[in-house]
Amino acid sequence: MKKTIDVCFSPALFHLYDVTDSIVVVIDVLRATSSMCVAFHHGVKSIVPVASIDESLSYRAKGYLVGAERRGEMVEGFDLGNSPFSYMKDSLRDRDVALTTTNGTQAIQIAKHARQIVIGSFLNYSALSNWLLTQNSNVLLLCSGWKNAFNFEDTLFAGAMMKRLHPYFSLTDHRDAALAAMHLYELANDDLYGFLERSSHRKRLEQLHIEDDIEFCLKPDYTDVIPVMVGDAIYNLNVLQSI
Amino acid sequence: MKKTIDVCFSPALFHLYDVTDSIVVVIDVLRATSSMCVAFHHGVKSIVPVASIDESLSYRAKGYLVGAERRGEMVEGFDLGNSPFSYMKDSLRDRDVALTTTNGTQAIQIAKHARQIVIGSFLNYSALSNWLLTQNSNVLLLCSGWKNAFNFEDTLFAGAMMKRLHPYFSLTDHRDAALAAMHLYELANDDLYGFLERSSHRKRLEQLHIEDDIEFCLKPDYTDVIPVMVGDAIYNLNVLQSI
Repeated sequence: MKKTIDVCFSPALFHLYDVTDSIVVVIDVLRATSSMCVAFHHGVKSIVPVASIDESLSYRAKGYLVGAERRGEMVEGFDLGNSPFSYMKDSLRDRDVALTTTNGTQAIQIAKHARQIVIGSFLNYSALSNWLLTQNSNVLLLCSGWKNAFNFEDTLFAGAMMKRLHPYFSLTDHRDAALAAMHLYELANDDLYGFLERSSHRKRLEQLHIEDDIEFCLKPDYTDVIPVMVGDAIYNLNVLQSI
Repeated sequence: MKKTIDVCFSPALFHLYDVTDSIVVVIDVLRATSSMCVAFHHGVKSIVPVASIDESLSYRAKGYLVGAERRGEMVEGFDLGNSPFSYMKDSLRDRDVALTTTNGTQAIQIAKHARQIVIGSFLNYSALSNWLLTQNSNVLLLCSGWKNAFNFEDTLFAGAMMKRLHPYFSLTDHRDAALAAMHLYELANDDLYGFLERSSHRKRLEQLHIEDDIEFCLKPDYTDVIPVMVGDAIYNLNVLQSI
């Protein structure tokens, strides 16, 4: 029997889904889960997602690099923000990072009772979808949204995953969100950047002059890492499997 | 300055919106708000939306007709269910009705602190949108969904309203849901019935043999009634204004 695949538009709707037997893909395209993919691609050993800025700082004493983003900007006094480009440094190799962001890390926290949590973004699109096809598990694509509101960029990535994966899965009774994500992706696919032009997050991020970040985060297949949650931290599955 | 318009995909996301200065349009296309429009068109005096079946029954002693739907079917022992056709009777003229349904009446309950609540469906599409254009108020289109999950039929109606109204309003910072609804409506507009073919609620309702209900509920402009909440009950605004 085929396993099911579904899309959740917001952490505030997550309680409607039974994920005890599902792999949850946490999606925060702009920019938490994109930056995580970049970090692992550049050799980061682990990332601990933490909910608060204070908690993030407490990890510094333990030798972690600490990252924090609020309202789209790096918090003063932290080593790292939320831009994928800030994770392209050789100095990050084999380091542990504690990271808190407005939406992405919070979505990871609420999914803790899932069978498994993995991190998705356009940057690891093909590697992640190919891996999911081998797992024989139900899948829930969880959009982080913006402060629990529906947002386009996460929905479009969920739609891209649906487009690739749906022939191999069953739809659930709640299928409308999954179908809507797929329809919106098909509509936007030719020009994701242009489609997002009028979206809410683009408007917010425009003021931060991070057009380059956005363009980068929308390009598929920068890396083949699959960040996966083990205990309280996220690791690079490829590295775990090679140990 | 233009007033704002926005779309909320689920009662579970309603707390994200500040509606103290907004008219909230409650939408439950299949079938609560469609049936309410039909009821007022056929002369019903008032409809009290109640949350529970027990509360609905308690109104019978006060001379109300009582209506209840659960899982798409009329509850035994009640006068009315949730099919729009059951409200096309002359015997309903000037009667008061107490109604509980799975989704629609619950969405009305949570919107109680809005500036004003009105009832929307394809059946009163033009009358409602023309009226909203005269109100000089922010508008929130609230989709009832299915047990708090996103659903297509309510989203498509919200998209139809957006398409008609957005040139006269501003979008909010949370604009993505409003834009998504409009995109999906544009995609589905040529054949709403066909588009819903694969949707979740259609699948559920198929088993109940109410294809006629669905076809009816998707046709615009059956009536020019605008059901509006006053105190604890809903009335026909046209009647209120003629008194």
